[in-house]
Amino acid sequence: MTIITPKPISGFPELLPEGQLVLNRCIAIIRETFELSGFAPIETPSVERKETLTAKGGNEKEIYALSRLSAAQGENAETDVALHFDLTVPLARYVAQNSGKLVFPFRRYQIQKVWRGERSQAGRYREFYQCDIDVIGRGSVSLLADAEMPVIINRIFRQMGIGAFQVRLNNRRMLQGAMIAAGVKPEQNNDVLHAIDDLEKIGRDKVRGLLLNKVALSEDVAERVLAFVETGAGLDTNALLHKLHQLKEEYGAANETYARGADELREVVDAMRSLGMPEDAFAVDLTVVRGLEYYTGTVYETRLLAHPDLGSICSGGRYDDLASYFTTEKFPGVGISIGLSRLVFRLIEVGVLKAGPSTPAKVLVTVMDPARMQDYLKIGAELREAGISTEVFLEKGRIGDQLKYASRKGFACAVIAGGDEFLAGVVKVKNLNAATEQAIPRERLIEAVKAV
Amino acid sequence: MTIITPKPISGFPELLPEGQLVLNRCIAIIRETFELSGFAPIETPSVERKETLTAKGGNEKEIYALSRLSAAQGENAETDVALHFDLTVPLARYVAQNSGKLVFPFRRYQIQKVWRGERSQAGRYREFYQCDIDVIGRGSVSLLADAEMPVIINRIFRQMGIGAFQVRLNNRRMLQGAMIAAGVKPEQNNDVLHAIDDLEKIGRDKVRGLLLNKVALSEDVAERVLAFVETGAGLDTNALLHKLHQLKEEYGAANETYARGADELREVVDAMRSLGMPEDAFAVDLTVVRGLEYYTGTVYETRLLAHPDLGSICSGGRYDDLASYFTTEKFPGVGISIGLSRLVFRLIEVGVLKAGPSTPAKVLVTVMDPARMQDYLKIGAELREAGISTEVFLEKGRIGDQLKYASRKGFACAVIAGGDEFLAGVVKVKNLNAATEQAIPRERLIEAVKAV
Repeated sequence: MTIITPKPISGFPELLPEGQLVLNRCIAIIRETFELSGFAPIETPSVERKETLTAKGGNEKEIYALSRLSAAQGENAETDVALHFDLTVPLARYVAQNSGKLVFPFRRYQIQKVWRGERSQAGRYREFYQCDIDVIGRGSVSLLADAEMPVIINRIFRQMGIGAFQVRLNNRRMLQGAMIAAGVKPEQNNDVLHAIDDLEKIGRDKVRGLLLNKVALSEDVAERVLAFVETGAGLDTNALLHKLHQLKEEYGAANETYARGADELREVVDAMRSLGMPEDAFAVDLTVVRGLEYYTGTVYETRLLAHPDLGSICSGGRYDDLASYFTTEKFPGVGISIGLSRLVFRLIEVGVLKAGPSTPAKVLVTVMDPARMQDYLKIGAELREAGISTEVFLEKGRIGDQLKYASRKGFACAVIAGGDEFLAGVVKVKNLNAATEQAIPRERLIEAVKAV
Repeated sequence: MTIITPKPISGFPELLPEGQLVLNRCIAIIRETFELSGFAPIETPSVERKETLTAKGGNEKEIYALSRLSAAQGENAETDVALHFDLTVPLARYVAQNSGKLVFPFRRYQIQKVWRGERSQAGRYREFYQCDIDVIGRGSVSLLADAEMPVIINRIFRQMGIGAFQVRLNNRRMLQGAMIAAGVKPEQNNDVLHAIDDLEKIGRDKVRGLLLNKVALSEDVAERVLAFVETGAGLDTNALLHKLHQLKEEYGAANETYARGADELREVVDAMRSLGMPEDAFAVDLTVVRGLEYYTGTVYETRLLAHPDLGSICSGGRYDDLASYFTTEKFPGVGISIGLSRLVFRLIEVGVLKAGPSTPAKVLVTVMDPARMQDYLKIGAELREAGISTEVFLEKGRIGDQLKYASRKGFACAVIAGGDEFLAGVVKVKNLNAATEQAIPRERLIEAVKAV
């Protein structure tokens, strides 16, 4: 038989159990936090029809289509389906398809793998987890939903223990109003936003250069654009909101776009605070733009302060029309997405998330006297019955080797009993981290193990 | 813009939130039970190299290969990867690839989607969840691991509440020994096992016909084969084990295969009992064969007594060599697999698993006085902080409509407060199932909600 030597597949990451346990813990935190705020799970198939995925266009190169590796004679190996590249297109299709059966506002989360057929580069994955939540209305949806997103992000990342982070938010409507006030023409708007988006990355001078040379703004207009996005420099959130409020008067009543956007931003911040968002976990940041046409109001990014190179680890915003490719009915909403795989794999790599044991079990029941195996099995069953995750050492091996196995896998506790112990009605409970050992009466085993 | 009317994709099932919550609950039970027994999670990519998936051969038609929907000029749209069709091949590849980094016995579980490019038929899925556990040894692995599988199956299905079920177990080594004793020639062995496998489905007469006409056994040999697999008729487990033990003497010392198989079966049953397996949840069944070459000792099937049409809902067994296509090193093991999607979708369909609420949240905080929205948001935050999953009604709506929304989504409890309540420092807590309501002091809210 020919042996096929296995090797990793570029762009398709895979973890050892100790890493998988870390990733799963993060997924569990995300799931619980989404559910704590009343988001319901859905899961769409891994595939959509090709026409669904390409409705928006421009992304055919990154879509993986499915075909059967071999087809019977007269059958076509091709299929009309392909793997989804995000969870937004499937959500839009799902909402349009099931709108009669869903209760709106529809609060859903989705934690699934997505696939992108990109050329593999360092840090780029072809398969990765996305974790999305959205609140979707039929016709309309409250602005207060926008305030829930940062609060949820905060709770998740705090529990994951990934270090200091900051949710940066902005309002694109306000931004658009400010552009009008600055004298940007409607047809220049998108290019100006593109340039602003790069401010943090390339700096003021280069952005100014882009505004003058690429967008062809006059010096005056370019300065006013930059002055606006720099309004926040050195100000805390309240002072900045106050200043943005003052600008309403400066821009005048005719600039309703600005006024509405600024009011929305303030309302979102107020509600975030009522929902318990800590001040140090967010900032209003006028340079946050997020993509282009799709988002219409609040937009978010999230930075890990110690790892700016990761870019935004959780982004999203408000949109007016989720499912325009699939229905004429309007479904506005607001949502965020965590690119989980990249985040977790990177944080394991740099040691922020630490891989620990390679077993989820806390207790190893060792076997000193193989003739008493049925007793060891019963001890294992008893511990499990009490909800304590337990492995019984089933192989042959000296007690020293069994304890070595326990420490290699990372058990917290070993239960040890031989002839003497059985005779005396006791068991030894060894704390493997503290390397302490205690003999306790058999009937107090559960209690003693729980104490470890 | 052209509207693409969304419709389901045959073979790729999808649930509404109320069904998804049921499926997720089952997955959570399975995960927790696997971990309770010290099985560590791994997750392999959705794809493997084509050569990995086709190593065994014969299944090319059911494999979905990946190709890019469109490639840049000069680039190949084809890839060398395809979606996995089970979790056993990926496990074999994973173990061979990582054998230097894993601690053996390696106890792993895997809950992932798999894909099969079959023609779609009723009840056949092209995408579905499999939930697998295996204990894999390096060189050898204890027979006691075989006893853990039925105990884990029992705990899972009991908690899922799917009605009465029975794990049927057998030992293929013993079966093979009995075939030798009956006079079956080695080259007839597989065909005989195939025929026995169909006994329950097609009945004794047809199996006898197959044995005589297709396998070409003599009448004597065919009768002895049938007599052996019918040994258990009317006997309880202990009586059957006793009879199988007696046959060791009848078959004689030269038939080591039989003797070893029968001893293994007894040892597995003894250990299962020590691990707490209830008598009514299992049976030794000599007609259980499971596939052919791969399994070498203990084999399992699981039947739902009220739904025999579902076939085996959880199967598995012991094998001598997991990764023979990927390494010359021997990795024997034992494992089981639950075909979860088919089971859950079917049991929802027939009403055994009941879809309930379409929200994971227990509490809806209603909004009687929109001017006090910040207070309602604070109540929501407080409940969440206490671990109670909560949605605040953020839209505009009369209280009656809000309660209608609450009952449509299936909340257990509504919190209601208007001007009078805020003034008096109380809130009303409404039990939506019992339709009872109680005014309680604001500071006792958490307590009162928990009581509902």
